[in-house]
Amino acid sequence: MKAPVDADRMARVVLGRIAEPGKASLLDAVSELGAVEVRDRLAADPVLGPRVDGVDPERELDRAARSGLRFVVPGDDEWPSGLDDLARTPAVQERGGVPLGLWVRGPVRLDALDGAVAVVGSRSATTYGDDVARGLAADIARAGRIVVSGAAYGIDQAAHRGAIAADAPTVAVLACGADKVYPERHADLLAHLAVEGAVISETVPGGAAMRVRFLTRNRLIAALTGGTVVVEAALRSGALNTANWATRLNRQLMGVPGPVTSATSAGVHQLVRTGAATLVTSGAEVLEVLGAAGEHLLVPPRGRERPRDTLTDRQRLVLDAVPVARGATSASVARIVGLGTDAAHAALLELEVRGMVQCDEGGWRLAALAHD
Amino acid sequence: MKAPVDADRMARVVLGRIAEPGKASLLDAVSELGAVEVRDRLAADPVLGPRVDGVDPERELDRAARSGLRFVVPGDDEWPSGLDDLARTPAVQERGGVPLGLWVRGPVRLDALDGAVAVVGSRSATTYGDDVARGLAADIARAGRIVVSGAAYGIDQAAHRGAIAADAPTVAVLACGADKVYPERHADLLAHLAVEGAVISETVPGGAAMRVRFLTRNRLIAALTGGTVVVEAALRSGALNTANWATRLNRQLMGVPGPVTSATSAGVHQLVRTGAATLVTSGAEVLEVLGAAGEHLLVPPRGRERPRDTLTDRQRLVLDAVPVARGATSASVARIVGLGTDAAHAALLELEVRGMVQCDEGGWRLAALAHD
Repeated sequence: MKAPVDADRMARVVLGRIAEPGKASLLDAVSELGAVEVRDRLAADPVLGPRVDGVDPERELDRAARSGLRFVVPGDDEWPSGLDDLARTPAVQERGGVPLGLWVRGPVRLDALDGAVAVVGSRSATTYGDDVARGLAADIARAGRIVVSGAAYGIDQAAHRGAIAADAPTVAVLACGADKVYPERHADLLAHLAVEGAVISETVPGGAAMRVRFLTRNRLIAALTGGTVVVEAALRSGALNTANWATRLNRQLMGVPGPVTSATSAGVHQLVRTGAATLVTSGAEVLEVLGAAGEHLLVPPRGRERPRDTLTDRQRLVLDAVPVARGATSASVARIVGLGTDAAHAALLELEVRGMVQCDEGGWRLAALAHD
Repeated sequence: MKAPVDADRMARVVLGRIAEPGKASLLDAVSELGAVEVRDRLAADPVLGPRVDGVDPERELDRAARSGLRFVVPGDDEWPSGLDDLARTPAVQERGGVPLGLWVRGPVRLDALDGAVAVVGSRSATTYGDDVARGLAADIARAGRIVVSGAAYGIDQAAHRGAIAADAPTVAVLACGADKVYPERHADLLAHLAVEGAVISETVPGGAAMRVRFLTRNRLIAALTGGTVVVEAALRSGALNTANWATRLNRQLMGVPGPVTSATSAGVHQLVRTGAATLVTSGAEVLEVLGAAGEHLLVPPRGRERPRDTLTDRQRLVLDAVPVARGATSASVARIVGLGTDAAHAALLELEVRGMVQCDEGGWRLAALAHD
């Protein structure tokens, strides 16, 4: 007789072969009753029974292992606790729930995803979005957080490549089986992830990519990470589906702005405008949003230091009272500032030495446009 | 003997000659005691007395009138009530307060500024910022709201030109006297405003532009308008000073995003990121923010209609279950959707007619990448 934990794992393998990924009614039943009980009930169903009996879970696991896949289920050491939040998150159009398990290929343990960051966006990214996604992902990866994305064209690819460029592991969550290669042109990328990071899927090994599976996959990207950054997304981009899941799951949602003239930034701008997402412009800002309170707090960016900053208060007051275009006498400047003429004149000479004001027959005036 | 209202106006002209614009202590005293009383007290001062007595307010007004200037003071029909909010707004570094009056050149009445919008930003705007500012200003002007800016290079200029292109009046608030031309290359622009819009200043006629006056001027741009839009601003741009005044005055503050790689958008991004400003991407969104509750409410932008949108629910379910890359049998698709094989097959044929799926020896698959 098998240990109960093994029975649970085997039941989950069987149910994964019968039901679509993210089928909320089934997953909720499993959360409530346990996988063994749900499998047994389906086995008693006249239509589904034969299909349940037709699955040999041990053979499935052996075959998966030969493809380098492991099946991680609730209760395993490496089970990422973030996924359990899906049990408390209402389904959308029948999709939702804690996955039966995740098929994983690659050395990164799923419990290492604690604090990971999803970087997602449009498949048809611009070169701007591509550059920004790479830079953000590299900065996030250098800070020791794992970058998670979907291995698609565009922003997904740029995010993975940014992390790789930072010599850091990165994780892809696929809509097809974790042993499959989709899109085919990302074969090298996926092969790299399987050696240095991880390729994850809720879909059974060999399962095909289809639209409904991209949508259920998106909930996992949101749930596995502490926050989601949307780099570029048009108004109906699939990345906004991931963004919605991040919000539903109480994860941090962040958006990178772009030109308002760029259709691929319109969806991100909408998220920021409505308050759903926090605007971020750098990896450092992403870390600030995600950190424990105060952990990564940034010194608010200030412009570069200007000559003005090195002045005394009196010099600055005098400088501010010097006309931009026409000249003024020392006495006139003194009156505006409320200083004696001698004191104002001394300050003007100090400013002249610094090249900030000049004096000619018209009087004192600013040496350059110092007022912006 | 003059009517009291004239005595007040004359006292304000005199005080304007004695004190710097926006000198909070003086303006607060005027708000509390009245201009006549404050002038009389200054006239009794051994140092300032001679200067007070040296100003001939009637001559000042006559000379101003010959330059086409009028002096609008509290109590005048056209006095813009928004300025009175400055009486309740704490001064910053001694600058603040309700102005003694405004010198105005041009046909637009100041009370027409009710509902006006300030469009401000960097003097060193990019062509992107310039284009966006023009477009926003034109849209705002077409909606019947007056665009207010500062007649500087860059965003200010683009804002005025956008409104002019929409055949609408636009108003400039200057740091120098309203009769002066600064910057000189904007002589044509200012001449146009004096005929079709208005040029406004708190600074006495003939007064020079100086840094401190730009800062006090900024409070007027914020106070005269219902909201301020910052189009491009580097981290220490003067436009952020106007933004701060808008916030202090409880005006709507809006920011237009740009590429995160553009230094001239960094100040705007900071305003949005911290929640000080609402992100806006179009004139319509500006109007939505400024409108009475619900007045300009936009239909949330949706992407363009897609072929998917015209499908029945059943067709859509079937489409979502068709693999992206490899083929699937009708029976397999039917099982995923939970339909009978015949019904699924019928839907697949309907989708094939629409060119959305295709069938070959491998089975059914999507005809194109329909999943983004």
